[in-house]
Amino acid sequence: MIKEKIKQAVEILKEKNIDVWVTFVRESTTIPDPSLEMVVGTSCTWQTAYIITSKGETIAIAGSLDVANLKSKGYYKEIIGYVQSIKEPLLEILKRIDPKTIAINYSTNTVIADGLTHGMWLQLMSYLDGTPYKDRIISSEPVIAALCGRKSPTELKLMKAAIVETLKIFDKVTHYIKPGKTEQDVANFILKEVKKIGVETAWDKEYCPSVFTGPESAGAHAGPTNRKIEGGHILNIDFGVKMNGYTSDLQRTWYIRRKGELTVPKEVTLGFNTIIEAIQLAAKALKPGVMGCEMDDIARNHITSKGYAEYPHALGHQIGRIAHDGGGLLCPRWERYGKLPYEKVEESQVYTLEPRLTVEGYGVATVEEMVVVTKDGCKFLSKSQKKIYLV
Amino acid sequence: MIKEKIKQAVEILKEKNIDVWVTFVRESTTIPDPSLEMVVGTSCTWQTAYIITSKGETIAIAGSLDVANLKSKGYYKEIIGYVQSIKEPLLEILKRIDPKTIAINYSTNTVIADGLTHGMWLQLMSYLDGTPYKDRIISSEPVIAALCGRKSPTELKLMKAAIVETLKIFDKVTHYIKPGKTEQDVANFILKEVKKIGVETAWDKEYCPSVFTGPESAGAHAGPTNRKIEGGHILNIDFGVKMNGYTSDLQRTWYIRRKGELTVPKEVTLGFNTIIEAIQLAAKALKPGVMGCEMDDIARNHITSKGYAEYPHALGHQIGRIAHDGGGLLCPRWERYGKLPYEKVEESQVYTLEPRLTVEGYGVATVEEMVVVTKDGCKFLSKSQKKIYLV
Repeated sequence: MIKEKIKQAVEILKEKNIDVWVTFVRESTTIPDPSLEMVVGTSCTWQTAYIITSKGETIAIAGSLDVANLKSKGYYKEIIGYVQSIKEPLLEILKRIDPKTIAINYSTNTVIADGLTHGMWLQLMSYLDGTPYKDRIISSEPVIAALCGRKSPTELKLMKAAIVETLKIFDKVTHYIKPGKTEQDVANFILKEVKKIGVETAWDKEYCPSVFTGPESAGAHAGPTNRKIEGGHILNIDFGVKMNGYTSDLQRTWYIRRKGELTVPKEVTLGFNTIIEAIQLAAKALKPGVMGCEMDDIARNHITSKGYAEYPHALGHQIGRIAHDGGGLLCPRWERYGKLPYEKVEESQVYTLEPRLTVEGYGVATVEEMVVVTKDGCKFLSKSQKKIYLV
Repeated sequence: MIKEKIKQAVEILKEKNIDVWVTFVRESTTIPDPSLEMVVGTSCTWQTAYIITSKGETIAIAGSLDVANLKSKGYYKEIIGYVQSIKEPLLEILKRIDPKTIAINYSTNTVIADGLTHGMWLQLMSYLDGTPYKDRIISSEPVIAALCGRKSPTELKLMKAAIVETLKIFDKVTHYIKPGKTEQDVANFILKEVKKIGVETAWDKEYCPSVFTGPESAGAHAGPTNRKIEGGHILNIDFGVKMNGYTSDLQRTWYIRRKGELTVPKEVTLGFNTIIEAIQLAAKALKPGVMGCEMDDIARNHITSKGYAEYPHALGHQIGRIAHDGGGLLCPRWERYGKLPYEKVEESQVYTLEPRLTVEGYGVATVEEMVVVTKDGCKFLSKSQKKIYLV
């Protein structure tokens, strides 16, 4: 997979007209640059520069004690060890390549392209002081966004496998959910299943799964509580797994019937259907070339047009090795999203679609699906929830 | 533990005359700021500022969806949620506190104080543009170095427990090592023991343990290979565990006797004893107030005075929640160590002592012990290896 990704990186560098991409790290177990999983797949201790050029060269400059480990991996053709300082070998390599542009991993927009710490930035700048290379530094965000975003058929297969396991667990939990159980009980049931099949959760176990039941529940990104499930609750779960390095991220919604209640209250059905419609409308419009904010508009406007409050987050994010994979985002034009709302959607990107709304007195309706962008549209990777699950 | 650490942070801010410490992060599962384990112990998704003041105030400004999770933890008295941008609430809080100095997490010297990415630095600077606070930013390195470095009695107890488990595993592996087994076999044996007692390895499993046998072995930081153990080899292992959040990091050395060989070759004994002497000499000198480079000098000079090449790394590092804990380092005056060689040793810091040397034709002799700095000296936390282990 790493060889594939390095090859893809070279193609992207050519396409974007960038001469060199440098991933500059140290003690990468403590602060891991997200690019490392793609460009090297192992950690290092001392300052290390992983250099990939548009001509296909691969050069690693590493502390002498890290050299043997890197050699055993075999991903870098040229591996240079140093003892006292990386400065000299780094400048020598730059002199030899003489790049017009040097992409390094910083980005205000997206965490996946922001692996360089500020201290490491200061170090690098001090090394480049007095050289012509200091002014040739650019952000590697377009390289990393493309590299993470454009999924290969192998990657899509791995993601589909993660989705299938997630949906199986959703099926099982449907039989477990009942009045009297707590959010925490439901989460524990899911975590047991995760352990049973020997995978990891897609994000922090503390709130993966997130389980929310009833009108008083906490809202996204919070851990499950001891709140009890009751008749008349809407219950929703946000959950995904990480399997063979790739993640899923899905949400499903249940309705817990009151004693003797045979159908679902009208308000609940209306709220749930509004979510499903918002997803379908956005999916119909999603294709290469559209801007993320346009997709968010479609879902957000549909929901507000039905009289609901707008959701306090983005319609959807990219997903891959991590649940919040970077680059383009289907998000509103809010300051905290920087330039992301205006990024254009590309073929082979995988997005979640996850609007939400509150049904007053019942709880939160939210469904999250995963879609892959095709040549002229998008395709659902997840078998979609079309009706609210009944308990 | 987090409440303890936040309280300690307030004391350190007072002592260092720093008004405010801000840990500024986003998507902290993907790029974790090492300070988070001390100041909050959970992850967040959107941009979040954890603010601790020298007056003892604790304020978290977080994305609205992260608020419930933070509230449930209870570490921050004031928790402010935002939807569109963190800028306004952040500036309001700074205006209210009006700090003369604002410490944030960047450092060229040490990874543990360098959790702010360069992209997040740029964001923060853009928020502070046009305010007086931009010029009041300083590095939080002294705060974090003290906070990680000064171990409480509880922390020392946890570290001792990790050491005890590590030494038990070293004892067991002594019976396992024999000619014909590979480095990888030995590593697998150790990893099985780690799993059995239900702990984690102290660093990346790929090279924790590191196992090196014979004169052709790879040197530190590399993973175990299929190289076979043979009579006449020196074998050494670098290994530690993480238990209840705290780590150990120790090295031990074995000699594999050739058929019929009853004693250890003189060269091997001489090399091994030189390492032990270097450790003892350094430990005798180690006390509050000395500089790290002075300690490295003592061990390094002892080894070179006996005609061996100098080791290509530091004599020792601090250790705590991570194996390479930050702040002061017992290291030579090399460029890559920045200002660290000149940092003064403080009471209650825990250091490793780990010189190494090559015995030509046999392998690498290296022992690593852990010591805690006391009021006027230091004390071994690990039961020391005094004689080479025989196989």
